[in-house]
Amino acid sequence: MAKKYVYFFGGAKADGKESMKNLLGGKGANLAEMAGNKDLKLPVPPGFTITTDVCAHYYKNKKKYPKGLKEEALKAMEKIEKLMDRKFGDPNNPLLVSVRSGARRSMPGMMETVLNVGLTEKTIPGLINTSGGNKRFVYDAYRRLIMMYSDVVMEKAGGIEPKDDESGIRKQLEKIMSGMKKEKNYTTDTQLNADDLKELCGLFKLKIKEVLKKDFPDDHWKQLWGGIGAVFSSWNGKRAISYRRIERIPDEWGTAINVQTMVFGNMGNDSATGVAFTRNPGTGENKFYGEYLINAQGEDIVAGIRTPGPINEYSKSEHNKDMLTLEKVMPEIYKELFSIQKRLEKHYRDMQDIEFTIEKNKLFMLQCRVGKRNGPAAVRMSLEMTKEKFITKEEALMRVTPSQLDELLHPIIDPKEEIAHKLLIKGLPAGPGGANGQVVFSAKDAMEWVKTGKKVILVREETNPEDVEGMRVAEAILTARGGMTSHAALVARGWGKCCIVGCNGLHVDYEKKEILVDGKTIKEGDWLTLNGSKGNVYEGKLAMIDASEENKILMDFLKLCDSVKKLGVRTNADTPEDAAKARQFGAEGIGLFRTEHMFYGKGSDEPLFYLRKMIISKTQEERKLALDELFPYVKKDIKATLEAMDGFPVVIRLLDPPLHEFVPRQQIKLEQLAADLKINMEELSKRADALHESNPMMGHRGVRLGVTYPEISAMQIRAIFEAAAELIKEEKKPYPEIMVPVVCDVNELKDQFSIVKEVYGQTLKKYNIKKIKYMFGTMIEIPRASFVADKLAEVTEFFSYGTNDMTQMGFGFSRDDIGGFLPEYLKKNILPEDPFQSIDQEGIGELIKIGIERGRKTRKNLEIGICGEHGGEPRSVEFCFHVGMNYVSCSPFRVPIAKLAAAQAVLKTNKNKTYKL
Amino acid sequence: MAKKYVYFFGGAKADGKESMKNLLGGKGANLAEMAGNKDLKLPVPPGFTITTDVCAHYYKNKKKYPKGLKEEALKAMEKIEKLMDRKFGDPNNPLLVSVRSGARRSMPGMMETVLNVGLTEKTIPGLINTSGGNKRFVYDAYRRLIMMYSDVVMEKAGGIEPKDDESGIRKQLEKIMSGMKKEKNYTTDTQLNADDLKELCGLFKLKIKEVLKKDFPDDHWKQLWGGIGAVFSSWNGKRAISYRRIERIPDEWGTAINVQTMVFGNMGNDSATGVAFTRNPGTGENKFYGEYLINAQGEDIVAGIRTPGPINEYSKSEHNKDMLTLEKVMPEIYKELFSIQKRLEKHYRDMQDIEFTIEKNKLFMLQCRVGKRNGPAAVRMSLEMTKEKFITKEEALMRVTPSQLDELLHPIIDPKEEIAHKLLIKGLPAGPGGANGQVVFSAKDAMEWVKTGKKVILVREETNPEDVEGMRVAEAILTARGGMTSHAALVARGWGKCCIVGCNGLHVDYEKKEILVDGKTIKEGDWLTLNGSKGNVYEGKLAMIDASEENKILMDFLKLCDSVKKLGVRTNADTPEDAAKARQFGAEGIGLFRTEHMFYGKGSDEPLFYLRKMIISKTQEERKLALDELFPYVKKDIKATLEAMDGFPVVIRLLDPPLHEFVPRQQIKLEQLAADLKINMEELSKRADALHESNPMMGHRGVRLGVTYPEISAMQIRAIFEAAAELIKEEKKPYPEIMVPVVCDVNELKDQFSIVKEVYGQTLKKYNIKKIKYMFGTMIEIPRASFVADKLAEVTEFFSYGTNDMTQMGFGFSRDDIGGFLPEYLKKNILPEDPFQSIDQEGIGELIKIGIERGRKTRKNLEIGICGEHGGEPRSVEFCFHVGMNYVSCSPFRVPIAKLAAAQAVLKTNKNKTYKL
Repeated sequence: MAKKYVYFFGGAKADGKESMKNLLGGKGANLAEMAGNKDLKLPVPPGFTITTDVCAHYYKNKKKYPKGLKEEALKAMEKIEKLMDRKFGDPNNPLLVSVRSGARRSMPGMMETVLNVGLTEKTIPGLINTSGGNKRFVYDAYRRLIMMYSDVVMEKAGGIEPKDDESGIRKQLEKIMSGMKKEKNYTTDTQLNADDLKELCGLFKLKIKEVLKKDFPDDHWKQLWGGIGAVFSSWNGKRAISYRRIERIPDEWGTAINVQTMVFGNMGNDSATGVAFTRNPGTGENKFYGEYLINAQGEDIVAGIRTPGPINEYSKSEHNKDMLTLEKVMPEIYKELFSIQKRLEKHYRDMQDIEFTIEKNKLFMLQCRVGKRNGPAAVRMSLEMTKEKFITKEEALMRVTPSQLDELLHPIIDPKEEIAHKLLIKGLPAGPGGANGQVVFSAKDAMEWVKTGKKVILVREETNPEDVEGMRVAEAILTARGGMTSHAALVARGWGKCCIVGCNGLHVDYEKKEILVDGKTIKEGDWLTLNGSKGNVYEGKLAMIDASEENKILMDFLKLCDSVKKLGVRTNADTPEDAAKARQFGAEGIGLFRTEHMFYGKGSDEPLFYLRKMIISKTQEERKLALDELFPYVKKDIKATLEAMDGFPVVIRLLDPPLHEFVPRQQIKLEQLAADLKINMEELSKRADALHESNPMMGHRGVRLGVTYPEISAMQIRAIFEAAAELIKEEKKPYPEIMVPVVCDVNELKDQFSIVKEVYGQTLKKYNIKKIKYMFGTMIEIPRASFVADKLAEVTEFFSYGTNDMTQMGFGFSRDDIGGFLPEYLKKNILPEDPFQSIDQEGIGELIKIGIERGRKTRKNLEIGICGEHGGEPRSVEFCFHVGMNYVSCSPFRVPIAKLAAAQAVLKTNKNKTYKL
Repeated sequence: MAKKYVYFFGGAKADGKESMKNLLGGKGANLAEMAGNKDLKLPVPPGFTITTDVCAHYYKNKKKYPKGLKEEALKAMEKIEKLMDRKFGDPNNPLLVSVRSGARRSMPGMMETVLNVGLTEKTIPGLINTSGGNKRFVYDAYRRLIMMYSDVVMEKAGGIEPKDDESGIRKQLEKIMSGMKKEKNYTTDTQLNADDLKELCGLFKLKIKEVLKKDFPDDHWKQLWGGIGAVFSSWNGKRAISYRRIERIPDEWGTAINVQTMVFGNMGNDSATGVAFTRNPGTGENKFYGEYLINAQGEDIVAGIRTPGPINEYSKSEHNKDMLTLEKVMPEIYKELFSIQKRLEKHYRDMQDIEFTIEKNKLFMLQCRVGKRNGPAAVRMSLEMTKEKFITKEEALMRVTPSQLDELLHPIIDPKEEIAHKLLIKGLPAGPGGANGQVVFSAKDAMEWVKTGKKVILVREETNPEDVEGMRVAEAILTARGGMTSHAALVARGWGKCCIVGCNGLHVDYEKKEILVDGKTIKEGDWLTLNGSKGNVYEGKLAMIDASEENKILMDFLKLCDSVKKLGVRTNADTPEDAAKARQFGAEGIGLFRTEHMFYGKGSDEPLFYLRKMIISKTQEERKLALDELFPYVKKDIKATLEAMDGFPVVIRLLDPPLHEFVPRQQIKLEQLAADLKINMEELSKRADALHESNPMMGHRGVRLGVTYPEISAMQIRAIFEAAAELIKEEKKPYPEIMVPVVCDVNELKDQFSIVKEVYGQTLKKYNIKKIKYMFGTMIEIPRASFVADKLAEVTEFFSYGTNDMTQMGFGFSRDDIGGFLPEYLKKNILPEDPFQSIDQEGIGELIKIGIERGRKTRKNLEIGICGEHGGEPRSVEFCFHVGMNYVSCSPFRVPIAKLAAAQAVLKTNKNKTYKL
């Protein structure tokens, strides 16, 4: 049997179907489905698809078409003519068609399109006649055809290379048109009347002859085959080729071509055009929702020149509530449309975004596709469609992206506002959601302004622990330096607060209290709006949407996640309040409790002060004294968190950061410290200087402090055990897991474990109890630790991956300093993404796998989790699931996202078993 | 057959032999060999060994001896009596014996010894008689026996636990003795006369009875079995047990016991004692060398109270040249001794250290063992013994330790002086050899003092590039901070200069120009002496030995190394002078040429100045201008080194350190820079501040600079190719290997390689040549690089391991900051050694192996080397050989050591094939 090159669709019939995407392209297959499927039978403008085989043949055979193609096309055209009761090239009742590309996978804007094909001097009068004498409509269509055709078909596909952009034919025709507008004092195209347009068409043709040395073809078939050739040519256009490189689309796929009847919503008051959604894309409500315009074309809705009307009562909004609905104006057509959308949703089993045109009281469906939706809508639809038994719960889970779920957790900038505003500057998206506020430059100012009822954005070069109170009251934080795991980013993310860091082009002048950015000056008190999920900064006050109160929907959805996921999800929480928040989201324990964070900005200065005393101590005696003063605070804090997590495990990390981080920077605090320690300022700065390190990230920190100052570990361990013991006496179920950070060798663990054992025994005795349930474990964050994990597992019962530090050491990237080169690395595509955001599976991932494998070799039931920032990033969560971790841990506001990612990871793995889309 | 428990030796016969160490212990087996071997037949004082089996039986059977032991011992004693013509316990002619431990492996000082056993009230008169009436000698021996026996046998082995150290029996007896000395106004023990000693023995016995409630045994057999029991008991003493834990000696081995005739060199003028070496241990010369003392015991030589005489003319020295030689005084005995030492050397095939005693004109050999020797002696002996066909060349190579070879390369402190002086403080041994000089505190002072002819030690908190000129002229460098790869250490090692870093207890006060250490003050101009190979600092001026001129011997030895080793040895050299030095030692190329080092202190300030201009540039234009100014210097430097290494490969590393390292710190230089750049100081410090990084080691450096500022790479690459092209025109054979540092991903290499290809093409064209031989490669120093080595090898032809940085990242140890915890880590045995000194084979080693395996998988003939500081450390060199590297590279003065280590690595591997010891 000879190959079939042309597939017809229209009149409730179609040669093709949805599954033939490889042959017909995505668009062609979809048009065939819409037109031909028994359940749908949509009134699609009839047309035909030329297959991708033809494209292949075209390129293999010096741009020649296979035999029989023209005949098949002719036959298909006849079918169209019959259905439309018009004829291609007919002077009285002409049929116009469009010629569009359509590859297997969508390549939006990469290939060419020619519209209004079939309009010639011969057919113009007929179209004027059938359009009810609308000469302006016809000559405007003709003018558009000439411009498009001369550019796409005659110049580009004709292989004519203009000298520069300005000398291209399209530009030259545009010049003629703007010349005429100027001459006639018109400001918009719509002011051009029928005669103007007619004159323009004549001038265009002369110019084309002059420049391209060819006549604009006045034959409808010549126009059609010219258009088809141009679309095939555009498959190998520069833009299309480079797009395919990036998207990895094979060159040999080729494109199909769709030739389809032109329909016009602008043929009078019995014509219209519109877009609609089968459910509300902003809320998810199961109501038909859309807009339409009488006597208009689709592009008029997009252009926003006229205000569209609501298709029904439900679709009414503030600015169109007084307009007539389509339901009222064309009740029959509305009924048909309503029925069609019902069928569509049922057929495609998802909310559809549809485009329709009414030409002279006849409804045509131009396009339908899965509709875009915001986060709350996505979650609601998924849940409701599951209840309606429309989709399975697995499908429901796969239909919500983690970032959509994130929208339910934070206020966001109104997307429309965001489109309408120009970006001021872009930074790294360090804390989620949106926020607006007035600029302040210090933590102190932030607190004062907020007290007077203002909303502020705290802007700093970079933040440090002394800024924390100001950060807490600010709507958002913006810093010029730092990476995704800088101080500002870590703190903000922990609170779920909007934050943007590493805005390299931003210059902060604390003295003048202003920001210099891109030549502009932003002063104290000016408004800024931040999109912390994208890293976008806008000038002024943009409107916000807050979906974070829709708790019921979120909780239902999380239950769905829980029913599928296998990975545990814990939270990184440093305070009882954080712990409680995370419990609300269903966190199954605390994966990281940073003991040092209790010293940051929590009302009372005392713990921090004693900590500083301890740090600046010179002798073991001084240090022990300070530790004794510190002890009750540490115990109290740990006890409160263990209590909040009653029954759930709490991983408590021993002191991690280098001590100098806690040395005060403010003169007054330094003086206070000197006075209390009874030393002079000179001695104090000597001691503080001695703590200085060239590379503190790889310096005297973590277990290295514990080994050199065992009394510090002992104090912390005692606080843990005594807190637990007191809770046991109160009939609670504390479950601490003691974690040693920055470990590179088993001997470090043995050293620390001997302290644990000793203090454990002392505590049992002191409280007269028999047992405290606890685990002893280590962080795996130093690359070497992975290699010696078999030995580490001899003394530990759990591992927790600190992927921040592992990424730092594994890449040799200081998270605080990557601002100098990472943007260039991403721009040059040297790295596909910031490895501090998503785990680098190739390098760091292998280190992780080695550690897990060796650890479990020694101790089969070793508990393994992750407490690095990656624990809340969906792809990293999926990775953690695949390498066999027991749980991930992330900041409270990432817990829902981690749960969803964990559930999706299971579904993706089981794709062939239980999951169907 | 019944088990044999007692092995006799003596009278040119022995039941045992050397190979029976497991049964007889090391000492017992050796005594048997010396006494019984046919070739030796040494006059060893006869005795017998009780086997380790007895020890095992003793502990298994509640401290009971096996049946038959006493009978065997009795028989052996009879043989001794016969040979010595004395009788154990005989009142007229008594035989005295010693009882000593002797385990399989030597455990020096860990177990007990009892001497003079057999001396009783009954035998005292006999011994006085046989000693020629020497009552003092006899009572002193008796006094010693009582003290030793009461302590070791009666108290310790008797299970009596004194309340504290002071209440032990030995202390109490010592108190009695010192009381008597005080009463009689004696200052030394030797002032006690025979009567005093006799009285003392009586007092001792009374005290023993009072304290231990037992009499001191006056029976010779009782004494003997008491002593034997005490020695067995001491196998399970606290000290012995903990020593076995550390040295991993199994508890079940047990110890043997040697009972041996006591001989006395202090029985009159026909008695003597001495020590001798079969060759000169200080020079290696093949001459019998030694000292003796008439009428003395061995310990008298060690104590150094009397000056010993030379055994022969050859052994005469400045302070004993007028004394009579043994050869003259006892010619027969000397002849016997001479013949014995010849036999000994032949038998043991190595230089022997021997102890002898002459008792009443009869020669006894007490001990012989392989003699200790210094570096020059070791090398000379090895070479000469090979020529004498005494040993194989493989043995010769194994007999010199790398640190002995090092002694041939640098002056060292006279070892005798070093023993005699108290350590002032210990730091990290960063640069080899010894040096003395006067303390100065700045590079400027160093230069001025040296101009006036003084020798100086430059003392700094830590050094930076601005100190380099001062470091060059100083004898040695001493810093309070920094690790083995700090600036001072790197620079000093490169020059082979003595250097000690990281002296934590040392406080430098630049203002007062003084050092505070351990309560002492060292002022400017005071003398210090440094042992840079050990990290020892001494006050004052210690004498030096300089063997570094013995070039012939060194070169011969290196030839021997070359004939065996398989690993290539290159050098890390940054200047043509360094390159030439390394060529002298036979370096086979340069493994690391650090382009940035040309900017440090080389007379002209210009290159550094232009580099600084480049760094502080704000725009690409400014930067390019500065680079153009810099270019001729860089090219000239590279050309000179390529020329010095004509024909050998030179690995040239592109710019590595973070730029801020080059920003000047001196105000005057900053002002000069600002003036030249036509910017004000405020702007300059702004730019300099912008370069500041939190963790520069993991910041914007290496290839990250090359990616963000491709013009920097381009300038360097152009300098390399143009230098090579010019040399080709001059008919030289330049062979540059271009190395990219700090790489973590193949895309970085692709980015840089595109610059290489472009500049290569341009250079060929410019010089009109067809080809420049070169390689493109990468450093492997970032942990991730090892994991992606298969990909890296797609674009590179060689890898060079930067184990300094790999150790930093792999351990998370900043080399500049480890001073805060590493000493404690080594003290607590958490790490067996500083991983910056010897490669951590467990962790970092695995990273290296992974990289090599994957790299070679992609490119079979990938050239792999190491250019980190470990490349000159013997164990690391051995590791590099085993993992299949092509070469190691190290500083010029480490080249000989690396060669020896490389040769020894081969021999150790082939142990069972060609190598025999």
